[in-house]
Amino acid sequence: MELVKHILLAKFKESVSEDEIQQLIKGYANLVDLIEPMKAFHWGKDVSIENMHQGFTYVFESSFESTKGIEEYINHPAHVEFASIFLPSLDKALIIDYKPT
Amino acid sequence: MELVKHILLAKFKESVSEDEIQQLIKGYANLVDLIEPMKAFHWGKDVSIENMHQGFTYVFESSFESTKGIEEYINHPAHVEFASIFLPSLDKALIIDYKPT
Repeated sequence: MELVKHILLAKFKESVSEDEIQQLIKGYANLVDLIEPMKAFHWGKDVSIENMHQGFTYVFESSFESTKGIEEYINHPAHVEFASIFLPSLDKALIIDYKPT
Repeated sequence: MELVKHILLAKFKESVSEDEIQQLIKGYANLVDLIEPMKAFHWGKDVSIENMHQGFTYVFESSFESTKGIEEYINHPAHVEFASIFLPSLDKALIIDYKPT
């Protein structure tokens, strides 16, 4: 089975509280139960010491079995609804997908 | 055992050939054998379809058991030597570390 990782780097807006961030992350994690091709979800705050993170402070990492699966995820109503709440809470976002070898 | 992921997003300079990129990636992968705290290494080319990758085209993902391990890695002579060859070959680099939950 192929593995494709979907990485979102994020920086939340200053106006978004720590509680709101936790709620948003819960909503993100919940997508695993709603969107079949999304197989796993992990996240973490930046703990880097090299100061090369360009302002991004959170990493969200989800796993899929194909790029087709990521396309299904992007277009899934549950993702579209979540993204409409999540993306406006961000100052910066970067998304990259790769097949780890 | 704790897990800390060290993510490097990269874009190689136009002047760097595909062969040179493959050599550089081999050198990166080789660090796992030289630097004890570096426990795993995976990489992949960007395959994202959302056009939010901000020009980055490669993901390099290494695993450590602590942030202390990443600090040891950064300061290890084998890494310092490799970075002195690798970083000048890049147009853009972004580094972020996180403890996946």
